[in-house]
Amino acid sequence: MAPAVPAFDLHDAIDRLAALNDDPDAGGITREVFTPTYREAADRVAAAMADVGLEVREDAFGNVLGRWAGADPDAPAVLTGSHFDTTLNAGRYDGVVGVLGAIAAVEALRASDFSPARSVEVVGFAGEEPRFGSGCIGSRAFMGDLGPEELERMRDRDGVALADALRGYGLDPAAVPAAAQAPDGVHAFVELHIEQGAVLEAAGVPVGVVRRIAAPHDLRVTLRGAATHAGATPMALRRDALAGAAEAMVELERLARAAPSGTAVATVGVLRARPGAINVVPGEVTMDVDVRDSDLDARTGVVDGWIAGVRALAERRELEVALETITHDTPAECAPEVVAAAEAACAELGVAYRKMISGAYHDAMVLGAAIPMGMIFVPSAGGVSHHPDEYTAPEDIDRGVAVLAGTLARLAAQT
Amino acid sequence: MAPAVPAFDLHDAIDRLAALNDDPDAGGITREVFTPTYREAADRVAAAMADVGLEVREDAFGNVLGRWAGADPDAPAVLTGSHFDTTLNAGRYDGVVGVLGAIAAVEALRASDFSPARSVEVVGFAGEEPRFGSGCIGSRAFMGDLGPEELERMRDRDGVALADALRGYGLDPAAVPAAAQAPDGVHAFVELHIEQGAVLEAAGVPVGVVRRIAAPHDLRVTLRGAATHAGATPMALRRDALAGAAEAMVELERLARAAPSGTAVATVGVLRARPGAINVVPGEVTMDVDVRDSDLDARTGVVDGWIAGVRALAERRELEVALETITHDTPAECAPEVVAAAEAACAELGVAYRKMISGAYHDAMVLGAAIPMGMIFVPSAGGVSHHPDEYTAPEDIDRGVAVLAGTLARLAAQT
Repeated sequence: MAPAVPAFDLHDAIDRLAALNDDPDAGGITREVFTPTYREAADRVAAAMADVGLEVREDAFGNVLGRWAGADPDAPAVLTGSHFDTTLNAGRYDGVVGVLGAIAAVEALRASDFSPARSVEVVGFAGEEPRFGSGCIGSRAFMGDLGPEELERMRDRDGVALADALRGYGLDPAAVPAAAQAPDGVHAFVELHIEQGAVLEAAGVPVGVVRRIAAPHDLRVTLRGAATHAGATPMALRRDALAGAAEAMVELERLARAAPSGTAVATVGVLRARPGAINVVPGEVTMDVDVRDSDLDARTGVVDGWIAGVRALAERRELEVALETITHDTPAECAPEVVAAAEAACAELGVAYRKMISGAYHDAMVLGAAIPMGMIFVPSAGGVSHHPDEYTAPEDIDRGVAVLAGTLARLAAQT
Repeated sequence: MAPAVPAFDLHDAIDRLAALNDDPDAGGITREVFTPTYREAADRVAAAMADVGLEVREDAFGNVLGRWAGADPDAPAVLTGSHFDTTLNAGRYDGVVGVLGAIAAVEALRASDFSPARSVEVVGFAGEEPRFGSGCIGSRAFMGDLGPEELERMRDRDGVALADALRGYGLDPAAVPAAAQAPDGVHAFVELHIEQGAVLEAAGVPVGVVRRIAAPHDLRVTLRGAATHAGATPMALRRDALAGAAEAMVELERLARAAPSGTAVATVGVLRARPGAINVVPGEVTMDVDVRDSDLDARTGVVDGWIAGVRALAERRELEVALETITHDTPAECAPEVVAAAEAACAELGVAYRKMISGAYHDAMVLGAAIPMGMIFVPSAGGVSHHPDEYTAPEDIDRGVAVLAGTLARLAAQT
C-alpha cells in the first residue's frame, strides 16, 4: 500500500502553509479561522491528506478530517491532529506541526508494514485560537459542545458573529450539531504540538509527554469612571478607570506569582482605554484577562482573590465594575494508556523525553473531557510562541513525528 | 453704528454649532480641526462675525479672525477668542463659549456708546485640541511658533500628517509662516472659557479670573518586552510590557499625588497594548502621558522622578524603554493689567469672582509667552469637560460675556 516515493514533504508543507498570511508585513503570520486565507489553508491541508491516500471530508463546522480505514472500520478510530489557524502576527509552527506532522506520521505508518486494526484519522480543528473570544471552537463543535446561542453570541474584535463567519465560509450554522462525532466515534486522541514554553529547551530534552493540561479561566472586566479633563481635574477628584485598571493589573500579577501551585499564570492580553485622548482622563477600560493553572484550586484562588481585590479598589476609586466570563475550562488529565503508548514509542526510538504539564491549552483539553487523550511536545526555541520568532528545529519536528507514529501504531494495533 | 436688533443670539449659536458633529450617536460632539465638519463650523463662525459687523478674514493656518477697527487702527489690537474644535465625544461649551461669547461681547460693546481707541479682534484658533498629538497648533502658528518640519512630523491617530490635513482643508503648508501676526500686532489677549474643573462650583462663585495657567509636559512612552504565549510562559520568564506599564501607571499616580505643589496632575489618556490577543502576553505598550502643574519645578519633579522609576522597573522586567516628548510647555503667568481689567469689570458689574489657577491649558498659554494675557472662567457643572455631559448654564455664560465686554472695553479704551 505504501507509495514508492513519499508524497508529502513535511517541512516544505510547513513553509508553504506559512505563505498563506493576511499580514505578511508584520513579520509573522496572521491566518484567522474562517477567513478566505484560512479557506485556502484548509484546501491545502485536505489536498495533503488526499495525497497520502486518506479519505478526506470537511465536517459541518469546517474541521478537516482524513481517514485511513482500519481492519475493523466500525471500531472507534484513533484520532490525531491539531489546528492550522493562527493568532495575530504569530509563528508558523503552533498547531500546524500537529496537523501536517500527523499526515507525515500516517504516511510513515502506511509506508511501513504496519496495518491498523482501528481506523486512524487525522484532523485539523477549525478555530483553536480565540478569534471569537474563546478558543477551541472546532473541537468543541466536534464534541457537540457548541450551542446555537453561542454561535450568535460569540463575536470577533470587529463584531462579526461566529454564525455569520460560518455562513461566509460556506457553512450553515443550523447544521453545526452534525459536526458532533465524539466521543462515540473516537477511541483516543493524540496531539503533537510545539511546547510554546521553554521547559524542554532548558532541560535539554527533545520530547515532552504531557500528563496534564492547564486550563484558562478568561474574564472580561470593564471599569467605568468619569472621562474628565486631564488638566482641570485634580487628582483627588478623579475617577480614572485606567489608573484603577493599573492597580488591578499589579494585583493580578502579584496573586499569580504568589499562588501555592507555583504554576499559575495570569495575563491581561487585551486592554482598551476610552475615550483615548491624551487630555482626557480615561472614563472606561475593558480588560480581557486570562488566568491558567493545571491546579484548579490554585487557579480559583487567583481569580476569586483578584475579583475581590478589583471590587475593593473600584469602590475606593468610585468606579463601576462589570464582569463577564469568556471561558471557564477545567484542566484535563491525560489518559494513562495514551501516555504509556507515547512513552513506549520514545523508548523504542531511543528518544529522551520528559513528562510535563502543558501550560497552554489545546484542542486535546477539550477532547479530554470525554475521550482518552494525550499530547506529545517538541521544543520551542527560547520558549517563544504566538510571535514571528516562534521556531522549532526540523530535526525536533521529525523526532516528534516519529514518536507520534509509534504512539498511533500502539493505539491502533488492536480493537 | 449699533444695529437696532441684536444680530446674534449667543445661546442659539452655541446650540447650532453643536449640531456640526461627526459622531452624534456617541452622545457628545466630535468636531476635530480641519475636517469637513470643522470647515462648516469655521464658515458659521465667520458668518456670525460678519453679522455683527466685523471685518472677517481667515489666516494662513485657518484661524478665523473678525476685526472691529479702533480709532487708531494702526495700534496693536486687543484680541479675544478661543477655539471651536473639540476632542472626541466632547461637550458643546469648551472653546465655543470663548469664540461665540467674544462675538456677543463685541456686539454688546458696539451696541453701547463705547468707542474703542484700539481695534478689537475676535479669533477662533484652529486646533486647540490635540488631534495631531499636541494642542494649540492654531495659536502656535499665530505666534510664529510652528515650523515646517513640525507640519510634516505631527500626525493624527490615523497617521495623517498635519501638512496633508492643511492641504485637505484648502491651505498651503508652505504659507503657514504668514499666519504669524503676534506679538507685534497684539496689545493683549483675553480668553473667556469654561473652567473644565469644579473649583468655581464648589466655591459657589460665578466667575474666575485666572492668574496662572498650568502647562503640560506630554510624553509618549513605549515599553517593549516579548509577546509570548499566555499559557506556556511562566510568570518568572515573562517580559510583559503591559504588566510593566501597569506598575509605571501606579507610580505615576503616586508621584502626582505626592508633588509638593499640591496642584500636579498626571494622566495616561492613551494606552495601546500589542498584539492585543487574550492568549498572548503583550510585547509592546505605548502610553501617552500628560503631566501638568502651574508650578514648573513640581511638574519637573514628577516627570523626572517618573522617568527614573520607569527606567528602573524596565531594567528589572527586561523591557526596553523609548521616550519621546510630545509637548513641553511652560506654565504662563497672566498679565497684571489684564487681570486688573477683568477684576475691575467684575467689580463694576457687581459680579463675585475668584482669582484662580487654570489646570487646563488654553491658547492663552501659548500667547502668554510674548503677549500680555488673561482668562475669564465660567463654571462647569460637576467639573465635567471633554465629555457629553459638559454643561455651563446660560446665565453663567451671559455673566462671563458681560465681564469679557467690560475687560475688553478697559483694554481697548486707550492706545
